[in-house]
Amino acid sequence: MKCNVLAIGTELLLGQIVDTNSAWLGEQLALAGIDSYDHRKVGDNLGRMVTALSDLLDEAQAVIVCGGLGPTPDDVTREAIAEVMGVPLVRREELVAQIAAMFGMRDRDMPANNLRQADIPEGARVIPNALGTAPGVMAEIAGKVIYAVPGVPYEMQAMIKDFVIPDLLERAGMRSVIVSRSLKTWGTSESGLAEMIATQVDAQSNPSIAFLARGIEGLYVRLTAKAANESDARALIETEETELRAILGDLIFAVDDETMESVVLKACAERGWSLGVAESLTGGLIGARLANVPGASATFRGSIASYATEVKRSVLGVTASSVVSAECVAQMAEGAQRVLGCDAAVAVTGVAGPDEQEGQPVGTVWFGVAVAGHATETVSTRLPGDRERIRQFSTISALNLLRLRLNSF
Amino acid sequence: MKCNVLAIGTELLLGQIVDTNSAWLGEQLALAGIDSYDHRKVGDNLGRMVTALSDLLDEAQAVIVCGGLGPTPDDVTREAIAEVMGVPLVRREELVAQIAAMFGMRDRDMPANNLRQADIPEGARVIPNALGTAPGVMAEIAGKVIYAVPGVPYEMQAMIKDFVIPDLLERAGMRSVIVSRSLKTWGTSESGLAEMIATQVDAQSNPSIAFLARGIEGLYVRLTAKAANESDARALIETEETELRAILGDLIFAVDDETMESVVLKACAERGWSLGVAESLTGGLIGARLANVPGASATFRGSIASYATEVKRSVLGVTASSVVSAECVAQMAEGAQRVLGCDAAVAVTGVAGPDEQEGQPVGTVWFGVAVAGHATETVSTRLPGDRERIRQFSTISALNLLRLRLNSF
Repeated sequence: MKCNVLAIGTELLLGQIVDTNSAWLGEQLALAGIDSYDHRKVGDNLGRMVTALSDLLDEAQAVIVCGGLGPTPDDVTREAIAEVMGVPLVRREELVAQIAAMFGMRDRDMPANNLRQADIPEGARVIPNALGTAPGVMAEIAGKVIYAVPGVPYEMQAMIKDFVIPDLLERAGMRSVIVSRSLKTWGTSESGLAEMIATQVDAQSNPSIAFLARGIEGLYVRLTAKAANESDARALIETEETELRAILGDLIFAVDDETMESVVLKACAERGWSLGVAESLTGGLIGARLANVPGASATFRGSIASYATEVKRSVLGVTASSVVSAECVAQMAEGAQRVLGCDAAVAVTGVAGPDEQEGQPVGTVWFGVAVAGHATETVSTRLPGDRERIRQFSTISALNLLRLRLNSF
Repeated sequence: MKCNVLAIGTELLLGQIVDTNSAWLGEQLALAGIDSYDHRKVGDNLGRMVTALSDLLDEAQAVIVCGGLGPTPDDVTREAIAEVMGVPLVRREELVAQIAAMFGMRDRDMPANNLRQADIPEGARVIPNALGTAPGVMAEIAGKVIYAVPGVPYEMQAMIKDFVIPDLLERAGMRSVIVSRSLKTWGTSESGLAEMIATQVDAQSNPSIAFLARGIEGLYVRLTAKAANESDARALIETEETELRAILGDLIFAVDDETMESVVLKACAERGWSLGVAESLTGGLIGARLANVPGASATFRGSIASYATEVKRSVLGVTASSVVSAECVAQMAEGAQRVLGCDAAVAVTGVAGPDEQEGQPVGTVWFGVAVAGHATETVSTRLPGDRERIRQFSTISALNLLRLRLNSF
């Protein structure tokens, strides 16, 4: 089964918007075991859309068209599909009612243009859109199929997951269910990881094992299982996950939607501990990541970004002569504990560049973790890359150190 | 003149990497006045690359191919171009020497595969790559042209700006120079902005005026001028910029590579003032943005992210009963001034959600600016969107308020 992808929008060609939808679609198709060899972008131009649609359909059994379903006159995906099918557009009264109700609910006057969204090529099916006013379209043409979905990412994603992928799998005669799980790791390289689980990767085909490098979000080990039903697929994944966890251990910090910051907050909450941060080169990034987790306020007390040396001394009580040292970072962590009144604190100080500091090279970073009633732990590293990368890697490395420390209690 | 774009890489189709290069290329082509109607992605597959290249060249006078020039056997852009040209690859000895020297300089053993990068289709020209080992290729075919550049963004961008765009302009008989400048605004909507300068937008064709919505980076007004030489183009832009500035005034916060945080730090530095921050719902984002500006340490002293109410009280000395109030945010700003020992301080507190706080709805945000020797200024707003958006908009809004306040002295 092959399915191509066509993204619609002049703003994509002009580079005003980066086309992230196609990448997401490519990932979902790959997960479902459907080949996707040709992705295209064209502008809001009927003729070019018709040509691209026809070409892409020639090469594959299915095409997903993303965008151009809005209410304005330059949204002509509906017209393009009708032309490829050789049929007229028909206004669907049930959609008119739905769209009117949607706008009625929102207490606005419905613009007449919105009725265009109720026009569907004759003989095509409607793909329901629970999250917006633009219905999708499924059009069958000589045993092949075009799916049209809106360009708004969350509307598109829901429609692809709920309707398009299951329909594609059924057409492909793949009446199986696909389940995937990402084990997120931090602390080793992709080649290091690959070496550790080489035997498993080579031996496994269901679930399959893939590596995804996600920068400061970590290196993911993604398991994808195929089975007759969801519980069988989950069982396959769980067996493999158990085996991988036995090898990777603490390198795995989170699964799927969890993040480094969410697991750190959860670990604190489970122990009934409040958390504080003392930052320097990161300027507030660690606190910002923690504060972005909904419900953070139950655990996270705050962050002192002591960028200037005098602030490290006056606010956090640092007396160490060097501000890039084990002594300094330990005093920062303990200072945060004291000033913020928290049970656990993590601190980071170092040289983000562009210039070296105190004779220490750019990328030198010290981390410290203070936990009430225990000795403060410090560790240093040398990070590669530019200023932004050093700050970002310092942030996740600090949170990871805190995680490992919390797990040791 | 039409120029299409082909991005190469199986990892793009699988969604492991988002194709940002095509968007950047589309923007550069648009700036240069060159039409670009068809962008495609194909994997590292010789047959599909040849088909896509031929098709794209049929539709246009030029094609830019991005990626597939690396040293590994799956990098076959060179082979694909040779096949479209109907010629063999020829190893260029001067490139062998260059590549060897590049690796020699880096003191590594050169892998034999790297010699593949010295293979160029017979009759094609080399596009120099000053920043990496993969040379680009320019191939002329029946009066049309293919440019191949590496997928590494900074290498690609330099080669496009220095070689490809000038060559395209010359082929198009456009011996003119194009200069663009972005005036970055914050504080009004796109439609509000469009209304304010409608007369100028309608009247102007050189420089042309376009709006670019860049989310929390602001709303840009981009001027693009075409002239016989660079100084004439700059003069056209400056005349128009003067006129727009007379209308937009303080809405314009920065130009081109400047950011909100860099102009705020510059304004402080010019006045000899140090800067501090007190945050709450932003958790450290404001400090993080300021600290990301190289040289920030000359001005930026730090940020106190007082996420918990007790921290607002104990560290910043807040006594206000409501922590989402003018009184609280003023005390936070003055507290930051005192605790961080700085001349100017900006503070923000509010409700990021998901739940309301103190009976105040999600999105309610208070900002405060304290400047030594002056009354502290406070202002509130109601921001739309989810938690992440509210925090991001709070960050740039706080910095913008600080900017306006600094400009008033």
